[in-house]
Amino acid sequence: MGSDIVTAREAKELRALRTRGNRDRTGRFVAEGIRVVEDLLASDLTVHWVATASTLEDTPRGAALARDIDRRGIPCRTLDDRDLAEFAATDSPQGVLAVASIPTADLEAAPLAADRSVVLVLDAVQDPGNFGTLVRSAEALGASAVIALPGTVDPWNAKSVRSAAGSSFRVPIVQTGWESAAARLRERGFTLYGAAAEGSPLPGDRPARVALVVGNEGAGLTTSVREEVDALVKISLSGRAESLNVAAAAAILLYELTR
Amino acid sequence: MGSDIVTAREAKELRALRTRGNRDRTGRFVAEGIRVVEDLLASDLTVHWVATASTLEDTPRGAALARDIDRRGIPCRTLDDRDLAEFAATDSPQGVLAVASIPTADLEAAPLAADRSVVLVLDAVQDPGNFGTLVRSAEALGASAVIALPGTVDPWNAKSVRSAAGSSFRVPIVQTGWESAAARLRERGFTLYGAAAEGSPLPGDRPARVALVVGNEGAGLTTSVREEVDALVKISLSGRAESLNVAAAAAILLYELTR
Repeated sequence: MGSDIVTAREAKELRALRTRGNRDRTGRFVAEGIRVVEDLLASDLTVHWVATASTLEDTPRGAALARDIDRRGIPCRTLDDRDLAEFAATDSPQGVLAVASIPTADLEAAPLAADRSVVLVLDAVQDPGNFGTLVRSAEALGASAVIALPGTVDPWNAKSVRSAAGSSFRVPIVQTGWESAAARLRERGFTLYGAAAEGSPLPGDRPARVALVVGNEGAGLTTSVREEVDALVKISLSGRAESLNVAAAAAILLYELTR
Repeated sequence: MGSDIVTAREAKELRALRTRGNRDRTGRFVAEGIRVVEDLLASDLTVHWVATASTLEDTPRGAALARDIDRRGIPCRTLDDRDLAEFAATDSPQGVLAVASIPTADLEAAPLAADRSVVLVLDAVQDPGNFGTLVRSAEALGASAVIALPGTVDPWNAKSVRSAAGSSFRVPIVQTGWESAAARLRERGFTLYGAAAEGSPLPGDRPARVALVVGNEGAGLTTSVREEVDALVKISLSGRAESLNVAAAAAILLYELTR
């Protein structure tokens, strides 16, 4: 395989892609870790180049990934472990980073035309772990798309991508404002539900197309969302409703809406 | 209020309580952040002393907490912000740390005698964010107790406590081995379910007392759990089941089991 060490210019790109501004400007992001890079290679996304450290080959799975990268002819540079730790944004880059293109997704192109469709809308969800869990749940429960409203953590920062465990590469993630999202969803016949502790239990007869908006971890839904949705909904609980984490609450609501 | 600065001995205690061994040995832990300390003070747990930085008084909520600590006569020491950042284990200690007693919880004392009862069992769940989300879901969905099996992250590390958002102070968390837990649960008439992708959908007629075991983020359930449970169960999904995060999967299963 005999790959070259990372150039100064490539090192600069890895450093630059740790900030959202540079990711937005270049349309690129960095995926970190064996499982995430495996999922990336299995997806439709364009992978520009990969950086690996010798530790990648310490496990059979890592060695298989190194061979796969080589077989696909993706440019591969080597890093020593200290450099890898410097360039990585997560604690466990596992010997591999990959620079890939952020997929473009807009509501016009999103697959919203199915007879039954659920879209998950994130209204300023700030924790990347919650974000990733939400994208995973959206995929697992068959949602058509995820919409990230302003104030939401960058879907393409390394922790968001890591927490999403590959789902970011398969579910369309649309970044847009609320007014625009609400208008497009209504045009396509979606009913808009906002998740809130003071909402009503989900109705038994559910609309065929539903967008579920969940809010910030501390503050909940923004006022403009609250005022625009068709209904505020909640889960009927035996315990203390206010105790649910946003990702757990959304998982239950999506489950109810998609079955 | 004129509290004194933290002594060398107290600083040593804060440092010591960052490791699990010292928490286990002393039976104490450190709670960090305004909301967590508010929940701690509202709980039955014994709070030994509190350390605050001047930033606590920057917000009305922080100032109210400072007054509450004073009113309760809890010994309070001051720290400068740099020291606070050094002693804190989370990124956002918000000007307040509290040293409290770890509540003792065992399966003999846990409230398992209700006609209907669900217990959540964590089999080597490693991420403190997932752990905390699971404890929150257990409380919100009315579970009677959480059992943390060996290999599970320390329930009393600062990140676990922070993620649990106060639920750790209200739901009994029992740390014990699987053989012992399984025997006690069976004695009390519990059916044991293990969550696994290859399981069967939850049966429609649910036993009155159920223990739900969820496994490690990567490896799933341990072999001894797999072999001992009455059934492996899963969620019926429209999408890709394997994509659910453990905390999201457990939230849905607990919701199904407790409604």
